[in-house]
Amino acid sequence: MKVAVGVHIIADLYGVDARLISSSEAISPIMENAIQEGHLTKISSEYYQFRPMGASGIALLAESHLSFHTWPEYGLVTLDIYTCGDRSNADRAFDYIIKVLKPTSVDYRKMERGSQIKEDVRITDPQMML
Amino acid sequence: MKVAVGVHIIADLYGVDARLISSSEAISPIMENAIQEGHLTKISSEYYQFRPMGASGIALLAESHLSFHTWPEYGLVTLDIYTCGDRSNADRAFDYIIKVLKPTSVDYRKMERGSQIKEDVRITDPQMML
Repeated sequence: MKVAVGVHIIADLYGVDARLISSSEAISPIMENAIQEGHLTKISSEYYQFRPMGASGIALLAESHLSFHTWPEYGLVTLDIYTCGDRSNADRAFDYIIKVLKPTSVDYRKMERGSQIKEDVRITDPQMML
Repeated sequence: MKVAVGVHIIADLYGVDARLISSSEAISPIMENAIQEGHLTKISSEYYQFRPMGASGIALLAESHLSFHTWPEYGLVTLDIYTCGDRSNADRAFDYIIKVLKPTSVDYRKMERGSQIKEDVRITDPQMML
């Protein structure tokens, strides 16, 4: 049986109000709230402020990761939400971000990650690998 | 004129020797070296060890990000290298990782991010956005 390990939403958001995405202070609550809305488990998160404007944020999750990179000069956010486990979690986090940022258009793709894995190749004895 | 802000390599690596990817100690030098090989600028990196095995690593780069998630029980690494600037940097980092991990097969995609941006929509006065 084939199994995929996770689902990855890859979205470029256009026409976002630059004031919402110019600073790390602006994007950090959006990202942190998206993690909560998605019922995701944060291991750590890191934000960075570019000069004169623009920000990046990346969160390491127990379920994989979530990242934000912003170009306020273009009204652009490039967003990745990659989660394992309950597939609706990524959707919930994504829907929250769209609700807050209100892009005028979105280039959206959703990918299966690890989709060539077959359950029967699973190595069941972890000691084999140490 | 249309411009893309970056290039994103999305790759699932299969058939990787589980010993190379079972621990955060094993993957961290690979990731850090890939950043150097790609001439990328690290802002921060974070690693996490799953029990009984498997690891995640994520690096925030001035050029965007690089992430690793491993499932040694499947011989699987899901890898993302997303960079702005010189497009050959992502390729160099990717080539290094492939050379070290020697997967038996790779599901590889390369995407333009922010590809709907038009240069003429650029807002040139940053004060407009503050």
